[in-house]
Amino acid sequence: MPQSLDLVGIGNAIVDVLSQTSDDFITKNKLNKGAMTLIEAEQAKDIYDQMGQAVEMSGGSVANTIAAFASMGGRCGFIGKVANDQLGDVFSHDIQAVGAVYKTPRLSGGLPTARSLIMVTPDAERTMCTFLGASVWITPGDVDREMVQNAKVTYLEGYLFDRPKAKQAFFKAAELAHEAGKKVALSLSDPFCVDRHRDEFMELIKGHVDILFANEEELMSLFKLETLEFAVKQLQGHCEIAAITRGSKGALIVTQDERYEIPAQNISNVKDTTGAGDLYAAGFLFGYTQGEPLEVCGRYGCIAAGEVIQHLGARVQGDLGALLEKKKVVYG
Amino acid sequence: MPQSLDLVGIGNAIVDVLSQTSDDFITKNKLNKGAMTLIEAEQAKDIYDQMGQAVEMSGGSVANTIAAFASMGGRCGFIGKVANDQLGDVFSHDIQAVGAVYKTPRLSGGLPTARSLIMVTPDAERTMCTFLGASVWITPGDVDREMVQNAKVTYLEGYLFDRPKAKQAFFKAAELAHEAGKKVALSLSDPFCVDRHRDEFMELIKGHVDILFANEEELMSLFKLETLEFAVKQLQGHCEIAAITRGSKGALIVTQDERYEIPAQNISNVKDTTGAGDLYAAGFLFGYTQGEPLEVCGRYGCIAAGEVIQHLGARVQGDLGALLEKKKVVYG
Repeated sequence: MPQSLDLVGIGNAIVDVLSQTSDDFITKNKLNKGAMTLIEAEQAKDIYDQMGQAVEMSGGSVANTIAAFASMGGRCGFIGKVANDQLGDVFSHDIQAVGAVYKTPRLSGGLPTARSLIMVTPDAERTMCTFLGASVWITPGDVDREMVQNAKVTYLEGYLFDRPKAKQAFFKAAELAHEAGKKVALSLSDPFCVDRHRDEFMELIKGHVDILFANEEELMSLFKLETLEFAVKQLQGHCEIAAITRGSKGALIVTQDERYEIPAQNISNVKDTTGAGDLYAAGFLFGYTQGEPLEVCGRYGCIAAGEVIQHLGARVQGDLGALLEKKKVVYG
Repeated sequence: MPQSLDLVGIGNAIVDVLSQTSDDFITKNKLNKGAMTLIEAEQAKDIYDQMGQAVEMSGGSVANTIAAFASMGGRCGFIGKVANDQLGDVFSHDIQAVGAVYKTPRLSGGLPTARSLIMVTPDAERTMCTFLGASVWITPGDVDREMVQNAKVTYLEGYLFDRPKAKQAFFKAAELAHEAGKKVALSLSDPFCVDRHRDEFMELIKGHVDILFANEEELMSLFKLETLEFAVKQLQGHCEIAAITRGSKGALIVTQDERYEIPAQNISNVKDTTGAGDLYAAGFLFGYTQGEPLEVCGRYGCIAAGEVIQHLGARVQGDLGALLEKKKVVYG
């Protein structure tokens, strides 16, 4: 009897290398502040050599969502590729330790496990330089049919679009999920990523996506529009639910007929925004797979995002399930 | 012209794997709460498999001291062995990133870089299980004569006594330092470590140690005595300065003729005591190498220890030098 899951995520399997830096560091290295830049091994070494003392912890956008989802008590799994190395051990350990099912075969004899160099500036903004390594060597063969078809929602990471084989894995997963009558969610990941793959994102959204996660910039980039409202209008009708994050302005949920604005949590000590969007998706999808109304899903998302921005790194610290319970009492 | 240093440290080169655990986890795995237990690769795997999501960061007792010392603005170096692997990259990067000189050749084709599995329980106590790996393959040949003889103080890690070759490196370093008219400091590291090597520790202390760092339990273990005062009396005369830490009771500094009691910092939010002793040594030695009176050295030690127990991990976060300056205004 195959295990029934609430959520399965497919994304990059990355270890984050986080360090607090000055704005000068960003300027000097000509990094795109607040964005994710893809880098190769040599550039990764160059930036790492200049970075201060760092902390390593598992990352990856959808993997962060899955880890948080598991910590809330959701049943979930992850599909993503690491190499047979020490960072691969770290990633595999952490995702399984939170209770997610993870059994993607490792890449042997190729590139090392992906890492993302994350510079956190004094304004709590994160700037990422990612060496994708083994992560992009995910293939359609890695998409576990049973896992996908037994999950209520399959959640796909936009960042994976950066390599063709990975993209194929995506389309396969979406088709498998729909074949079994399940839902497909997608995160647009990053405005520059959207810019690199606009047409294919549109193809995927129109044909396969039920729930779209995006922030304002990503959505405006998708439609090459300069106001959010026009972009939202364009999107309506293409997918069932649009879950849009707006940073400190909270979140917006739009369907064909409904619209909810959710205020952000009032957090006074924002330390590091890494993972805020990933955690919003975790809270939202947790509510969604538990059958909660969309407004409650959005609230769960904001609570989860509010937790992760209070400390360094994109993985939950402490008990998110308990936090949700506590807030539920307050917010109903 | 060789670089003149304030401090050189010789110790285990370790990457810490930190995770918050319950007291049940400690009991179930029969771990010695609050202590450091040496484990082999297989046992490390077994415990890691059971541990929750973790965070990796550079560690190692004397290496933590060196990193903090550098962050205060001290000129320092570290001698310790990592393997040619990803965790070795992490350790090497971090110690150099804070500004310490580090050029010990890596171990090739042998054991992997050392790691310490650190379980932090809700009472903020840390319990460590260390797989020493490449770290103990340090040999007398790794002791850089020029570095040692050009440093005001050479600081040795008691934990290194756990392997014979490393012990030889120790005695060599102590002899080189004294030959050049410099000082030698030693940390007793752990009461169980003291118990394993009592006679050799006594030999080293009597013949070579000017400044001894120990906590109450370690000192009582050294002399097999059950009260601190008797142990302190035994120690007087064997080394110039005894710098004794007493947890929340603060610190005690004893010389042949002087005695200072330093109150601990008043910290309300103790999160993780990992590295408290290492940071006390960093603050103390910073003051000492700047020519400050012993009482001020002790105060610096308590300030540095007070910083590190407020967050997870034994490496300083933020600017310890600035913190010291700020506290100086308050405490004189």
